[in-house]
Amino acid sequence: MHAIQQSPVSSKTAASQSIHTSNQEESERIASFVMKNTLPTVVVQGLGFVGTAMVAALSIAQHSDGTPCFKVIGVDVDSEQGQRKVSKINAGKPAIVSSDHNIDQAIQCGWGEERLMATTLVDAYQYADVLVIDINLDVQKWYDKNELEYDVDLSIYRKAIESVAETIKENALVIVESTVPPGMTEEVIYPIFEAAFERRGLDILKLSLVHSYERVMPGANYLKSITDYYRVFAGMTPSASVKARRFFEQFINVDEYPLTELASPRASEISKVLENSYRAMNIAFIQEWTEFAEEAGVNLFEVLKAIKRRTTHSNIMAPGFGVGGYCLTKDSLLADWSKTNLFGSASHLEKSIAAVHTNDQMPLHSFGLLKKALGSLENTSIALLGVSYLNDVADTRSSPADTFYEACMAEGANMLLHDSFVSYWPERKLNVSNELEAIGAQNPEVVIFAVRHSEYLQIDAESLYRLFSSAKVIVDANNIISDEKASCLSGKNIRLIGVGKGHWKTLL
Amino acid sequence: MHAIQQSPVSSKTAASQSIHTSNQEESERIASFVMKNTLPTVVVQGLGFVGTAMVAALSIAQHSDGTPCFKVIGVDVDSEQGQRKVSKINAGKPAIVSSDHNIDQAIQCGWGEERLMATTLVDAYQYADVLVIDINLDVQKWYDKNELEYDVDLSIYRKAIESVAETIKENALVIVESTVPPGMTEEVIYPIFEAAFERRGLDILKLSLVHSYERVMPGANYLKSITDYYRVFAGMTPSASVKARRFFEQFINVDEYPLTELASPRASEISKVLENSYRAMNIAFIQEWTEFAEEAGVNLFEVLKAIKRRTTHSNIMAPGFGVGGYCLTKDSLLADWSKTNLFGSASHLEKSIAAVHTNDQMPLHSFGLLKKALGSLENTSIALLGVSYLNDVADTRSSPADTFYEACMAEGANMLLHDSFVSYWPERKLNVSNELEAIGAQNPEVVIFAVRHSEYLQIDAESLYRLFSSAKVIVDANNIISDEKASCLSGKNIRLIGVGKGHWKTLL
Repeated sequence: MHAIQQSPVSSKTAASQSIHTSNQEESERIASFVMKNTLPTVVVQGLGFVGTAMVAALSIAQHSDGTPCFKVIGVDVDSEQGQRKVSKINAGKPAIVSSDHNIDQAIQCGWGEERLMATTLVDAYQYADVLVIDINLDVQKWYDKNELEYDVDLSIYRKAIESVAETIKENALVIVESTVPPGMTEEVIYPIFEAAFERRGLDILKLSLVHSYERVMPGANYLKSITDYYRVFAGMTPSASVKARRFFEQFINVDEYPLTELASPRASEISKVLENSYRAMNIAFIQEWTEFAEEAGVNLFEVLKAIKRRTTHSNIMAPGFGVGGYCLTKDSLLADWSKTNLFGSASHLEKSIAAVHTNDQMPLHSFGLLKKALGSLENTSIALLGVSYLNDVADTRSSPADTFYEACMAEGANMLLHDSFVSYWPERKLNVSNELEAIGAQNPEVVIFAVRHSEYLQIDAESLYRLFSSAKVIVDANNIISDEKASCLSGKNIRLIGVGKGHWKTLL
Repeated sequence: MHAIQQSPVSSKTAASQSIHTSNQEESERIASFVMKNTLPTVVVQGLGFVGTAMVAALSIAQHSDGTPCFKVIGVDVDSEQGQRKVSKINAGKPAIVSSDHNIDQAIQCGWGEERLMATTLVDAYQYADVLVIDINLDVQKWYDKNELEYDVDLSIYRKAIESVAETIKENALVIVESTVPPGMTEEVIYPIFEAAFERRGLDILKLSLVHSYERVMPGANYLKSITDYYRVFAGMTPSASVKARRFFEQFINVDEYPLTELASPRASEISKVLENSYRAMNIAFIQEWTEFAEEAGVNLFEVLKAIKRRTTHSNIMAPGFGVGGYCLTKDSLLADWSKTNLFGSASHLEKSIAAVHTNDQMPLHSFGLLKKALGSLENTSIALLGVSYLNDVADTRSSPADTFYEACMAEGANMLLHDSFVSYWPERKLNVSNELEAIGAQNPEVVIFAVRHSEYLQIDAESLYRLFSSAKVIVDANNIISDEKASCLSGKNIRLIGVGKGHWKTLL
């Protein structure tokens, strides 16, 4: 009996948690939960962003006669954060804060009907009819003299899989839902099960191993992005695919969103990272045209609207402050790692990697415009409006605000932070104001709109001036200020700079 | 009185043309044509691919009461080719061969009603109420040690504009419809008119100068791609825009395809080259994933189908043989030239240029696969199926077949050429067979499907084998052969190679 991904400090942390019972007691609690009814048991490994939504979706899955499909056990690591998530689920609440109340309701429903529990004990795996792997496989990324370097360390992920392989039932359905380097399920995960099953005297052919990927998005449709969206999957064997299809049909609206079955897990794995690389690359491509439009005095947003009339060009991206989140900032690196490490290729995914690089540097474009306008930023008070990476969502994972913040701090600026949804920025360990008035009252010399939150879009021209009359420069890095509002600010001694808005040079 | 773009040999060439009348006679012919009725005269400068479609569209434009809107004069250069085009129009036929019979009918209509003529004399410009500039601005492109180099020479284009500026009416509407480096209308063309008008004692403010771009596509909807598609335009002045809008409304179905007016000619110019750069870049992006899929044994077409379910990803491109045509192969270079030469930028459109480079090299990927399969290509007979750059169209401009052909010839291969639509390859000065049977009868050792012509898609598995039973290798570079057909060929001693079809490694 051991906890997954156990770190050296975790037992101490666990001991300090009054809610943590002994392993023996917890083990009995799991066994008693499983005995409560004969519903199939689904174990979700990892209660992060995807795992939480999966636990919610599975909790409300029901047959056509209204009876529930599953009982669900969420498992997370035995760390302070893992314990916190587990406690939340065990109190009928989501492990992740979200603006989608359907998640709360779904979890409340499963918990209330005693069909949902969570634990940090790997004991749970032995009961799984279906095990869904939702643990993150992180990429270490850094810059060395403006060269993007990265590393993928499989060891933690491998250990987590090993803990499953040691305890799982022979005929379980195991679904790898993590974004992994293509080839991982076949070349790394399957061999782990193969070795463990041999040791355990089990028949590996009875196991059903599948890769499938979600397309979960934070925000108001968090739950629906699992239950009402297209899903891709592929089994190691035809029978694994059949079992997976039946499982997905129970909680996904497949009538409206038919499942896509691919030929092999590696195809499903490539599909996921290609999707995100496509998007990252299209954003990076627009960045060089953003700079061109600024040089040429052209409003790129107007141009893009003209281009998007063509359905063949409808996916073209817009200028912006930067790219954040968990996927677009790293998935191309997973693919590149796989290409060279799992498939022995001599060549890299050069364009895809370059796109990640460009996107990582994007906030420095806004920073550069600001620097050019003011010369020095020393002791300049800068109001950074928006630390989330996504509009109308409280999500600071890999937020571009971080790069901008760091660059300003290195210049000796004083930063004022605002976000409509975020009140604490965990990556920076900083409080964030939710009150624009409070930011305005501190008379910032620079205001930068970094995220397209509705609150910012709704500020009228008069309020904009009233709030920030102290500003020498306002940077609109996300198409927040319309030309109409911009023209109201002319003659007010505020310099307006817009990313992708080259025409403002002549307008103001 | 002088001909546009007159080359040193053109007068001799002209003299050798029995159809060429004296300048005096031709001048009188134009004057008499113009006097025939009071309809506004539209002169189209350049009877190439776009100019021909414009002449056709303008010929059939009519008011709501059914009366015609314009009389039209097409002008081309006084060269052998120009003379040929002019003669064709003057015989009621299109200057460019096309599969769209609507073009033939439209030109027949205008010619039959004596509202359409063509000439090589610049005399015509003086009569223009509207002058549409449809002459090409070419880019010189070459590779120096695998580095893409290019040059844009404005001199010929400038001379053509000068010939207009010297003769045009003061209050004419001049529409630059050529794809030009962004900034060209404002920074190069306008100053030419300004200088000429000053010399001529005319008021430049009375001239209406506009940039507008078409989205003409060869093929069955050639005419409709002018009359029934979205159009973008921008005038140097508000009144120029108003005049242009009225003009477009007379021959474009603006109810279904509303016009898009941009703020400045440079915005319209950027829009055009960005559209094409977007497409070129997306093709180049997929090329690196094509190679990855082949290495990983994955069918990328299957993966792309899964990804395209998402409307946010519907523009993702597919693997293929290469990129050709007049636009995608050079428009990013025009943009880059403008960025550094007209707007003084220190940085290049790196990603866009790299995409053109990648696409230019694409046919060498198919060549590489073939080389890897056979070792040497010396004295190998290779059937190249498709020399056009586009499916079901006879268009060899910048065709990727050229690069492939050259590489094979350099290895000492014997090339057999087939195309469903092309019977003469002008760039190579070679005849091309339209008979697959005739190609098969020559027992090629290699067959490569290079274009997605319908004829190729319709070959069934049995015919495929019957036609090419002599082949050691068949390369499917454009997703011509389905997996079903491919499996019928297994065991036949033919090696199948598919671009982007990594799964064929295991299939066969």
